[in-house]
Formats: sequence, structure tokens, C-alpha cells
Amino acid sequence: MPEPQIATIDVRRQFHAYPEPSWCEFYTTSRLVDYVESLGVDEVFVGDETLDVDERLGVPDESTLEHWYDNAAAMGARSDVLESTAGGNTGLVAVVERGPGPVVGLRVDIDALPFEEASDSSHTPAADDFRSENTGVMHACGHDGHMAIGLGVLETLMHEEFSGTLKVFFQPAEEVLGGGRAMAATRHTADLDAFFAVHLGLGHPTGEIVGGSDRPLALRQSRATFHGESAHAGFAPNEGRNAMQAMSTAIHNLYGIPRHEDDLTRVNVGRARAGAASNVVADSATIDLEVRAGTNDVLDYMLSHVDRMLEAAACMHDCSVSTTTIGRAPRVDSDGVLSELVADVASRHPGVSSVKRHAPFGASEDTTYFMRRVLENGGNATYVIVGTDHPSGHHTPRFDIDERSLEIGRVVLSDAIFRVLTGERAQDDDL
Amino acid sequence: MPEPQIATIDVRRQFHAYPEPSWCEFYTTSRLVDYVESLGVDEVFVGDETLDVDERLGVPDESTLEHWYDNAAAMGARSDVLESTAGGNTGLVAVVERGPGPVVGLRVDIDALPFEEASDSSHTPAADDFRSENTGVMHACGHDGHMAIGLGVLETLMHEEFSGTLKVFFQPAEEVLGGGRAMAATRHTADLDAFFAVHLGLGHPTGEIVGGSDRPLALRQSRATFHGESAHAGFAPNEGRNAMQAMSTAIHNLYGIPRHEDDLTRVNVGRARAGAASNVVADSATIDLEVRAGTNDVLDYMLSHVDRMLEAAACMHDCSVSTTTIGRAPRVDSDGVLSELVADVASRHPGVSSVKRHAPFGASEDTTYFMRRVLENGGNATYVIVGTDHPSGHHTPRFDIDERSLEIGRVVLSDAIFRVLTGERAQDDDL
Amino acid sequence: MPEPQIATIDVRRQFHAYPEPSWCEFYTTSRLVDYVESLGVDEVFVGDETLDVDERLGVPDESTLEHWYDNAAAMGARSDVLESTAGGNTGLVAVVERGPGPVVGLRVDIDALPFEEASDSSHTPAADDFRSENTGVMHACGHDGHMAIGLGVLETLMHEEFSGTLKVFFQPAEEVLGGGRAMAATRHTADLDAFFAVHLGLGHPTGEIVGGSDRPLALRQSRATFHGESAHAGFAPNEGRNAMQAMSTAIHNLYGIPRHEDDLTRVNVGRARAGAASNVVADSATIDLEVRAGTNDVLDYMLSHVDRMLEAAACMHDCSVSTTTIGRAPRVDSDGVLSELVADVASRHPGVSSVKRHAPFGASEDTTYFMRRVLENGGNATYVIVGTDHPSGHHTPRFDIDERSLEIGRVVLSDAIFRVLTGERAQDDDL
Amino acid sequence: MPEPQIATIDVRRQFHAYPEPSWCEFYTTSRLVDYVESLGVDEVFVGDETLDVDERLGVPDESTLEHWYDNAAAMGARSDVLESTAGGNTGLVAVVERGPGPVVGLRVDIDALPFEEASDSSHTPAADDFRSENTGVMHACGHDGHMAIGLGVLETLMHEEFSGTLKVFFQPAEEVLGGGRAMAATRHTADLDAFFAVHLGLGHPTGEIVGGSDRPLALRQSRATFHGESAHAGFAPNEGRNAMQAMSTAIHNLYGIPRHEDDLTRVNVGRARAGAASNVVADSATIDLEVRAGTNDVLDYMLSHVDRMLEAAACMHDCSVSTTTIGRAPRVDSDGVLSELVADVASRHPGVSSVKRHAPFGASEDTTYFMRRVLENGGNATYVIVGTDHPSGHHTPRFDIDERSLEIGRVVLSDAIFRVLTGERAQDDDL
Repeated sequence: MPEPQIATIDVRRQFHAYPEPSWCEFYTTSRLVDYVESLGVDEVFVGDETLDVDERLGVPDESTLEHWYDNAAAMGARSDVLESTAGGNTGLVAVVERGPGPVVGLRVDIDALPFEEASDSSHTPAADDFRSENTGVMHACGHDGHMAIGLGVLETLMHEEFSGTLKVFFQPAEEVLGGGRAMAATRHTADLDAFFAVHLGLGHPTGEIVGGSDRPLALRQSRATFHGESAHAGFAPNEGRNAMQAMSTAIHNLYGIPRHEDDLTRVNVGRARAGAASNVVADSATIDLEVRAGTNDVLDYMLSHVDRMLEAAACMHDCSVSTTTIGRAPRVDSDGVLSELVADVASRHPGVSSVKRHAPFGASEDTTYFMRRVLENGGNATYVIVGTDHPSGHHTPRFDIDERSLEIGRVVLSDAIFRVLTGERAQDDDL
Repeated sequence: MPEPQIATIDVRRQFHAYPEPSWCEFYTTSRLVDYVESLGVDEVFVGDETLDVDERLGVPDESTLEHWYDNAAAMGARSDVLESTAGGNTGLVAVVERGPGPVVGLRVDIDALPFEEASDSSHTPAADDFRSENTGVMHACGHDGHMAIGLGVLETLMHEEFSGTLKVFFQPAEEVLGGGRAMAATRHTADLDAFFAVHLGLGHPTGEIVGGSDRPLALRQSRATFHGESAHAGFAPNEGRNAMQAMSTAIHNLYGIPRHEDDLTRVNVGRARAGAASNVVADSATIDLEVRAGTNDVLDYMLSHVDRMLEAAACMHDCSVSTTTIGRAPRVDSDGVLSELVADVASRHPGVSSVKRHAPFGASEDTTYFMRRVLENGGNATYVIVGTDHPSGHHTPRFDIDERSLEIGRVVLSDAIFRVLTGERAQDDDL
Repeated sequence: MPEPQIATIDVRRQFHAYPEPSWCEFYTTSRLVDYVESLGVDEVFVGDETLDVDERLGVPDESTLEHWYDNAAAMGARSDVLESTAGGNTGLVAVVERGPGPVVGLRVDIDALPFEEASDSSHTPAADDFRSENTGVMHACGHDGHMAIGLGVLETLMHEEFSGTLKVFFQPAEEVLGGGRAMAATRHTADLDAFFAVHLGLGHPTGEIVGGSDRPLALRQSRATFHGESAHAGFAPNEGRNAMQAMSTAIHNLYGIPRHEDDLTRVNVGRARAGAASNVVADSATIDLEVRAGTNDVLDYMLSHVDRMLEAAACMHDCSVSTTTIGRAPRVDSDGVLSELVADVASRHPGVSSVKRHAPFGASEDTTYFMRRVLENGGNATYVIVGTDHPSGHHTPRFDIDERSLEIGRVVLSDAIFRVLTGERAQDDDL
Repeated sequence: MPEPQIATIDVRRQFHAYPEPSWCEFYTTSRLVDYVESLGVDEVFVGDETLDVDERLGVPDESTLEHWYDNAAAMGARSDVLESTAGGNTGLVAVVERGPGPVVGLRVDIDALPFEEASDSSHTPAADDFRSENTGVMHACGHDGHMAIGLGVLETLMHEEFSGTLKVFFQPAEEVLGGGRAMAATRHTADLDAFFAVHLGLGHPTGEIVGGSDRPLALRQSRATFHGESAHAGFAPNEGRNAMQAMSTAIHNLYGIPRHEDDLTRVNVGRARAGAASNVVADSATIDLEVRAGTNDVLDYMLSHVDRMLEAAACMHDCSVSTTTIGRAPRVDSDGVLSELVADVASRHPGVSSVKRHAPFGASEDTTYFMRRVLENGGNATYVIVGTDHPSGHHTPRFDIDERSLEIGRVVLSDAIFRVLTGERAQDDDL
């Protein structure tokens, strides 16, 4: 095997320096296309070729899209990629076709988060000069590393012999739970026999591999806008229909949805924007909220409460309300077959010191749309966690990874996928 | 009397086209300085010479100040004025000194409101081409007309003979109840024997004059920020201290402050900004709120509730809260002496068809700081309303005035002030 | 004039010792019938003869009615009166008919309040041994005195010569604003040319008479019951529909009904009973609430909010709500003609040291139903306040009256009514 | 073995007909003393001999205690028992002493619930004429059956030979989680080597035995009273300090305590009593609330929120709050040793068709105080569920048991306890 083109640590650092928010991964997509083309994959699908555009959730407003689009262009993003991704249709699918045989998918996510990265020297990306160049945006969840692993697996397997097909899905907008549904709904997932998703960290240390993460929380994120009528708060408060009060009533009551006997529930109103000035009765109020649940049925229970409560809160203050879904993911558990396979492969790897066949996931992930589709079609699917020491929690300004885990991830996933592609699974009696 | 320099309608239209928000009246101040200098007043005090800077309330953030400052510079505002007003020290005081005698003040306000003006042809400023050139800002309360009247009165009286002093106060930041306190606290108001404030409209038709408006509501506007701690809403909601819930608890309870037996009360939370995203427990939430009352004592009652409730709401969700006053005005009623005088003068004016000696004000005004100071010093003070037909309410995108009222205002106020300056009051037995 | 049978102080003390709550004035009615029969009035209507029974509001439950009915029977109440008043149809109308002429009504109220009277010796009724014998009930609003005045006026005028009709209405259930509507709706009020209501105290000292009280607050009192579904709070909270949360949402929001520009408003939720035990999701929650307003229109405004909010609160937690009116009174102001008359009469009385033609009432009273009917029929109506020093506020356990005011009330009202009956009004040029 | 005195079905029916609420089991205790004396146990401790009286929680008010005490006396309760139990010190401990050897405890609970039993003929107790004779109280959780089993086990084992001690604890006030703490704190539990608690039903069908129930919810039930100040809601609402609003704020926010990542939580405000009448600002409001959690640590988390929130809610409306604990139980899981033993014994019993070694409990139980003490002292403890078909849920008016389960419970528990008493455990190689 020649010196690999994809040095995972370097690749990760390059992506780390230029993070882009969900649905705005224009420059990221362009760079990824460069990489996969240089590797010589058989087919590359870009942007609107990879998404059921109408199924996208959480797409930001025009001006945000435009800002990042222009930024990518100024950074030198390829014009063909910009064309395919315009309007927030980011992401790509790289395909290696080697004749008949198993069709295997690997999904990595590519978006970053909307906060400012730490800048002091105790934060490695700052000290080693690959801190975010994009003010107010940061790869604070490891997706930079996921892309590096995805590219590394691609290169590794392209040097191997097998009959079958490998597809690597570079999915946009995972952080808003907005891209999984749109990418999983396309023809690219229709023929998958096996599916792997990967995540770094999540509290697992470097050297630990989880073969299949389970029990992600089913989730729906919504944006609700209460429409009232403004009035002068001093002269004629009676002439208003107070969207602020409707909003406050909604917030208060949403947190009070009864717990469910069957499984855990979560509710949060995480963002609110209402009214304009202290002396005007607010005619508009918008909240972003989410509910999660341990099962899809319990999520439905939560949703029926949420939808009724939003209407009731509007009615309470003679307002109306309009609601849109901005993120969604079902609960789908990893398949025993593939998680066992990964665990087995991992246990043979020298860099792996701890293997868990299963571990609870705890949060939500929209790769479950891929998993659900594959399982419904009779395939297998697993969500692999590659442990990495992280000095600070995910989604914090000081999040970082232990870069040694990138190679571990690359090798374990390459091996596992290779075994599926070559059918070694069946012959392996210790599985 | 020569052709006046100040054609009130033209002047009003010029100001109407370039509205600036509170504490950002850089260009407006520069234009006003041009006018009063061209009239040849004896003294002009500008910007920080006219304000007790520490008493300013509701000053916007640096970036807003900077935006409007740069805009004024680009429009050609005078550099000496820009220097004096930098950092949001806008406004001016024009003084005509004619030796010993009464010292009389006239106050007009100069700021505009933060909304987009109507653009269809049924709105006269749009049809006649003097609609706001400053996107998102509008003279929607008549202050453009107030400035025209103030300048007109100045010119009129400069052509008259009297012994005494006339000061015209061009006050910034009335809309946020933020400038009155700061300008009234200076030495410029210390020697006033009589004080007139003026407002157009307020529901009174063209041709009606109110000699002295009464019962403005005492008011305090505050900004409260709840500080909590963020947490992942799915993983570990228990690790958060939810500023969103603290905010919602505050909003809910503030509206429930008990009514008071002595006089009316008002409460409004008009603006809220909280949190960042649906999946994060909000670590910060800011509300702009106000309370008003029919008397200063009842306002104190409201304030004691507000301050306690904000603390309790923070405590409820283990947060803290910090609060700042962003606007304030006491209730001060017009003095009988001057309101009678204005009514008398007005009743002799051919353009005036209806005279009210007194009328309730209903809302709040920070000119009451001037009035309170003058009354405490033994002077007289009145708040004059010059009726004007307005097709839409104050503070709406279609607000406009009947420009005929500008001349009525100029003449009535000039006459009234002249009579104070010349002591005619005493000799006038029908008062 | 012979020694009067009705010694107002003695009569008041007798009634004070046996207070009965609203619609339970069985013994009180029986005693009143004894008195008016002994005076020899021409006609006495009792109980269901004096009420439009379906218009009664705030009637207590069966067991409460039964308790007081049995108590009255045990105390020796007349069986004919008990028969007429059974089921909570208390009260009476005493009529003196003297041929053609003016028909004049006087209304006094007869019910007491549900709290325990003070028992220490600084409280005169305790010291002088006429403290309430009925545990937990107390004449704490002066209705004992009103009855004494009503009987006194009756006796006084029966010794006078006039042509016309005098009706004294002994109205039940004023404290719950429940009797006025039912008694005013009967034929007994249809022919009234003039109407007087009377109240002691209300902050006015002994020796002061208010000719006509004005601006009572329009009011509606309601009982709302939220119906949900119980569930075990530990096992399966999701199976409940939580009436407690619906109630709490209602309470919170009702206090937040916007103030009205036109006139004052009041809102109160004064009583709540919900659920059974901490470990059961409450399936039922009942609140007693009221709204008041300075005008009947503003009351309508409040009612539309209340009714919508109760529904929305129920909907919020998937409950239903049922609401009944338990008290109601419109705003009706005293008529100038009669209030002037009373003031004039009072000013000639040696015991009266202060006369006010008008004074604001401030609270609510269901005698306004009588007043509205009389005014609609073209008659005159006034609500007279007879000042009395009261050591403690109305509706407190230490309320008491200055008994000297009873004679003042008797004489002033007798004189005023006499002048109406005899038409002296017209001849009296100083009115 | 002679015909048993204790026919479990008859005994259960006798207790079923005379249910008494928590801490009011005066007649029940008297009947139990009769039974155990007739069986000839060695020692009987009654009432205050069996409780650490100061540790009782949820004791009802004096008048309730008195009512049931008098009722028991009227029913013929023994005067010696009444003396020992006066003031709500109910319950008993029956001891069989057979020399040195293991000390084994069995705990059954004896109280009933405060609701009206169904009366139609489809409800067996009604049809077969043993429906509750005590209006408004019902054995709706199977404690009647528990007593029958407890007596049955006592009789059974008294006919067996063993060396050691058997104590049967007839615990009062389980329904309010109020008796366990007080009885477990006495010397009677200090020497227990093994401890069994038993419950019928809980969703398990007739023929099923659960050897050891696990994961009861840790719980605290509290009563919080908000103290404010009353005021006339029409005249002077500002003079009040509104306990109703404080209560509503508390309810609203308590339901919003954040879910915890570690384990499930529950919160409920199940009972509220506030204020007196719609027109009075409520000066007092009382709520009964509970929080539960899957672990004792998470319960502590909930408690810190509850306690802070109650204070904040009081502060919000200028009230104070006082709180008392009215019920409490920690989470303690069944011990593996005894649950295995019970499962083994059960699996040999012909009436048992299904055996579970462990099953989650789901709700809360104050027998955990006994279990905690025994485990801390180095003993073993288990909570046995004896399945019974129940047509309706526990704590509903139609709850009933399948009486065949009583004999199953008696035999399985007798066998299990006998094996502990005789040390057969150790010799039994299949355990």
C-alpha cells in the first residue's frame, strides 16, 4: 500500500479551520469533491443530486445561505459545486463500484456549530494554528474528524479488492437534524445491504469502540410563531393581542407535559425572539423548541401535547400560531449483526483497548433515517462510536478530539466494511 | 417682517426624509445647528454641552451608534457637531439673550422610530417624495414637525422685541424616554421661569389647541437579563439552569401585578431575546419591560413588585438577573397659569377652531423632567398639544400630519412665549 | 308619636346575634316577618313570592341550605315562613298601601358573612353580649343595621299621612351578589317611581350622609370547574389529564388580562379546590373568580377574555371546563334628583355634620338591578350611604358600627321618602 | 393440621367491609389484636408500642382522628386497643418466639383509601354484600387481602416446628407513605435477619409470583402552605399579598423541573385548597405535592429544586411559605438471596403458573424503610408480589382481587419464611 493521500490528521485540521453551519457547507462540499475526485472514485453525486430537496428541514433564511455561498465563492470553491449546491443543497455521495456483490454505505456528517471557538493557547486548535477562520462558527462536535475518517476509509478500501459497491455519504445539516431525512429519502440508499454511521467521542475515551450505539432519542424540533396584534402599552393595552403572553404561556406549559410511564421524555424551548420594544404590545413571538423521547410512540405522545398546547397558548391570548418542523429524527437501534461485527473487528485492533458491543446513545441523530430505510429493506445497520478523549463536552467552545482516534476509526471501519463487502462474515465462526 | 427663512412645511419634510433613532440623531443635530446658526441665535450648545451624560437612559450599543455616526458623516454632517455628539450625545440648545427679564424655555424632541415607513402612494410622504431615506426608521410621531415648529418659533421671536432670554431645547431620545432626564439635569434649565413643551396630534384634530396636557403616566422601562447555564437538552437537561424558564416565569407574573386602588397601572413586556437553539438549555434571556402608573406613588408600588418579581423568577430556576433602567419619566401636570395663557392666545387665532384648557395625556413623556425642575424652582410649565389630523395612529407606518398645523403651532407658541417674555400676562385682565 | 316599637339599636343587636349566610336567611326572614306583621303593614310577601327563583345566583349546595334550614327550625322559625323560603328562597317585601300616589321602594339587605367574629372584649358585640351565636358566621358588613333602619323607616312612615305606596325590600344574598337580580326581576319593582338603597359606613364617618353613591363596579363572579382524568402520579402520569395544571394555567393568565384604556378593571381568583391527594393526578379543579370594571362595556371586555381563557386553559391540558355565574351586578349610578333630595334633607338634620351629594362607591352591589329597572321605567333611584364610625374594615372579624348612625339613617331616609310620597319635592325651591 | 381459624377469604371480606384511612385504623387494629390473640401468639405490641411516634408522617388533623376513633368505639373496638392507639398510633406487631435462631419479619399494611366504593352488582364486593360500610373509604389497594395473608402465614407457621422468631408487622398508613418510617425505626426491626413484604396484584395475574420487586421510586410528599394577606379584590387589590398567585406560580414551575439524565423523575401537585371567596384576595393556599425519582440521588436533585421553587413562588408574590413532609420512602431494591428463595418456593407450588425472580415496582412503598434497615444490619430483604387478577386498577372505585390468590400468597410466603427459619436455604443445592 502506497503512502496514503489522506492523512487523517491533516485533513481533519483543514476542515477544522473552515467550519460552515448546517446547509451552508458550500466550501466544505467543494473541498470534499476535490478529495474524492483525487482518489478517483467511480461516481460523485453532489448537492441536489443527493437530496430530496423538499424533505430538507431547518434550512436557514436566504440571507444566511447567501452569506456563506458568497464566502465559499470568495474562498475559491468550485463553480460546478457551487451550482449544484446553491440554495442550501449541500453534501455529496461518493461511490466505488466493483461489480456485483454487497452494497455498503458509510455515512459521515459535515456541518459545524454556530459558536465562537476558544482562542487561548490551552486549546490545541488555537495553539497549533488551525482554529476556526470563520468567526462564530466551530467544528465543536467532531464532524471535521468524521470527514477525515470517511475519506480515509474510502482511500483504504479503494486499495482493497472486493466485488460490490461502497457508498460514502457526506451528509449536511446533522446538527439541526435536518439533512438525514432528505438524503436518506433518495435512490442512493435504496439498495444498501449494510450501513455504517460513525461518531467520535460521546464520552468514550480514546481506544474504546462501541460496535452499535442504541436508543438514540426520537426527536422533533419545531419553530412556532405566535401572531398577535400590537398596541401602545400605555395608551391602549386592551387593543393588543399579546404574542408575548401567548409565548410565555406556551413555554411554561410545554415544560409541564407529563412524564411518560413507558420511557424517558425531554422538552426544551431553547430560543425565543419576541416583540420590538418595551412600550409596544408584541405582535409576534417565535420560539424554537424540541421534544425527545425514548421511543417513537412516546415521541408521538409528546407531539400531540405540543401541538395542542401551542394552539391553546395562542387561543389564550387571542393570537394565532403557525408551526414548522425544523428538525426530526426517529429512534432506530443498531442492528445486532453489524455491531457484533464491528466489535469483533475492533477487538483485534492493537489501538483498541476497550470494546463495547452496545452502548446507549442518549441524544438524537438523523442518521436514523438511513438506518430505518436500510432495516426496512432487509439490510443491516449500525451506529459506531469511535472513542476519543475530549477535554471539554461536545457543543462547547473548547471541544477538541484526540487525533489518534482518527486512525483507529479509519482502520476499524475499513476492516468492518471490508468484511461485509467480501462476505467474510459468514465464514467467521467466532461471530 | 421679512420672508421667513424657516418655511415650516419644507423644514418638516427635510427632517422627515432623514429620520434617526434615539441617541443617533447625529445628522439631525448637524442640520439643526446649521439652521439655528443661520438664524443668528446668540448661543448654541451642542451635544455633550447639553446633557448630563451619565443620566442618559436607553443608549443603544456601540455598533448601532457607530452605524448612524458613520451614516451621518457620509451624509455630510459637520465635523464639529460630530465631535460634540460622538458616543450618542446628540441634541442642542439654542439661546436668544436679550438682557434682563424672564427666561423662557421651549422644548421640542428630535428622534424617530425604528420601523419601516409605508411606501404606497396613499401615504403622502411617499407620494410627495419625502418618505424616509433611512430604511427601517421613520418619523412616525411628529417630531419632524416639532423641530419645524421649534425653529419657526425661534425665528419669529428673533424678529420681536423683548427683554429676557429664550432657550429652545432640541431634545434627543424622547421615544425611549431616555433624553429628558439627561438634558433637564443641566444648568440650561436651572434659570427657567417658564417652560413650554409641544406635541402634535395625539388624537386632537387640526385646529384644536390644548393649553396644558395633564396626567402623563409615570413610567419606568427596564431591561432585565437572566443568567443561567446552558446544557444539552437531550443528554443532560438537569445540568442546565434554564434562563428561558426564568424569563417565562417573569413575564407571566409581571402581568399579574395587582391593580392599584389609587390610580391606573400598566405593565408590558415588549421585547424578548433568549437562547440560541432548540437543543440547548438557554443560558441567557433578556426582556425589555415597562410599568406605568397614574401617579408617582403608584409607580413606586409597581416598581417594588417588578424588582422583587425579577429576582424571584431568577431564583425559581436557579439563575441570576441583572437589570438596568432604559427609560424613565415621572408624572408632572401642566401648570394652570401657562395652560390658561396658551388657551387664551389660541382662542384669538383664526386657524384655531377649538380650545381646551386641559386634556389628559394618557401616555408618558420625559419632558416631565424639565417640568418638574422648573416647577420645583418656582417657575411655570405647560405641555401644549397642537391638534393635527392624522390618518393613522402615532407609532404606525402610515402616520402622517396635516401640515397646516405647523403654522398654527408656530404662531400660537410664539404668541404665548412672547407674552411671557414681555410680561403681558399680568396686564391681561381676561386671563 | 308613640314610643316606637322598633328601637333600632335593640333590633340591630338581635339580628347581629343570629347571622345567617346568603340564601340561608331562614330565621332572619322569620324574625322580619314577625316585625312587619306586628307593625301592621298592609301586605307581606315572603320567600318565593318575592323572587324570580331561576334568576338567583350563588345558591349554596343542598346540605348547606338544609343545615341552616334545620337550624332556623330549631331556633323556632315560623313554619309558614320556612315553607315559603325552603330551598333558599329567603327574603320578604313589606308593603304599605295608602291609595293612589307615588310608589316608593326602600331596599335593605339581610345576609351575613362566613367568618368567625372576634371574641375579645375590645370588640363591643363580644363585650356587650350580642356577639354572633352562629359559629363561623358574622354580620360584618352592617346588614344587621340595615334591617334595623328598614324596619325603623317602615314604622316611622306608617305613622305619617300620605297617599301612595311604600315597599320595603328585605333582600337576601347581597354578599354573593346573588339576590338583587332575582328580587328586582319580580312584579314588585315594576311600578316603582322612586327607589332608595342604603348602606352604612363604607369609610364615611358617623354624621356624614352621601346622597347618592356612584360608580359601583360592574361585576361578574363565576365558578369554573376543570374536568380532567385522574391517574397514578408515580406509575402513569401520562394517563392523566391534569385539571390541576389547567387550573394553574387559568389562574396565571386571568391575572394577565390586559388593562383597559377606558376604565379600571379588577380580576381575582379567590378560591380554589382541586384534587384529592398528592399521588393522584387531579381529575377536577374548581375556582371561584370575579372580574369587575368601571363600566358595563369594559366588563364585557373582561368577560370575553375570561371565557376564552378558561376554555384555552382547559384545552391546554386536554381537559374540559364548565362555568356558572355565581354573582353579578351591573354598574348603575345614582340619579341626580334623589341624591340631591337626600342631601338636602340630610343637611337639615341636627345629627348630620357632613353632606356629600355624590361619592364614588368603589366596590360592587346588586341593588343596581333594582336601580336599573326603576331608571329604565322612568323612575328615579339613589344609593344612600349613612356614615358610621367603624373601628375595622367591612368584611373583617372586628367590624362594628357606631350605633348612633342607626337613628340618623332612619330619620334621613324617612324624611326623604316622605317628601317623595307627598310630592314635596316639587314645591321645594331650593332643590 | 386442624381446620385453620384463619379462612383467608372470610377474613379479607371482613376487613374489606370496614376500611379505615391512614392512621385511623382503630377498629382494624382492634380486630387484628383479636385475631392474633386467638391464635395465641407469644407477644402482641399495639399502637404506640410499635411506632417511633415522632417519625410518623401524614397524620391527619385532630377532627379526622377523632371521627374514626369515635366510630371504632361505637363499632365495639376494644378499649385497651383504643387506649394504645389514641391520637393516631395504630398498627401492631405479633411475635412468635421459639428460642434461638433466625429472626424473620413479615410486613403487611392495613390502611384503606379515601374514596367511595362502586355499588353496582358487577362489582363483587357489592354483589356479595361485603362492600365498604364506611362511606367514602375503600380497600382499593388490596390491604384487606394483605392482612388475611399475614394472619394466615402466622397461623400456618405457628403449627410448624422451628427455632427462631417470627414477627408479623401490621403497618398503618402505607397509602400516605407515612407509617413505614415510624415502625421501621423501632427496636422491633433491629434484630431481623430476613424481611419479607408482600403486595397483591400490581398488574400481575393470578398464579404469578414475583420473588423480589425492584426499583421502587424514591419519593417525598410535602404539604406547602403559602401565607399572604387578604384584601378586598374590588376595593384594594394592591393591599393583598396573593397566596393564590404564589400557589399558581409554584404549581406551574414545579411541573417544569428539568428531567434528569440519570434516571426517571415524577412530579405532581395533587391537591390544592386556597382562599375563601371570589371577592377576597386569598391569604392562604395549601398544596400537597410529591416528587419521585428512580434513585435516591435523583430524588435529592428533585428536592433541591422543589424547596427552592416553593420559596421563590412565595417571594414572587410577597408571601411566605411553610412546608412539611407528609410522606416519604427511599428506593431500596429486593435482595437477590430472598427473591431467589421465594421464586424457588413458588415454582414448586401447584397454584403458581408463572414465576419471576425480579420485576420492576414502578411506584413507591414505605416498606423500603424496613428493607433499608435490615440490609444495613446485614440481613436480607425482599418485596414479594402475589399476582391477582384485578378487574380495575389499584386505587379505583372498582378495584377488586381474585380471592384465589390469598391462599397462594399464604402458602408461598409460609414456605419461604419456614425455609429461612429452619435454615433449609443452605442445604438446598438447587438455589
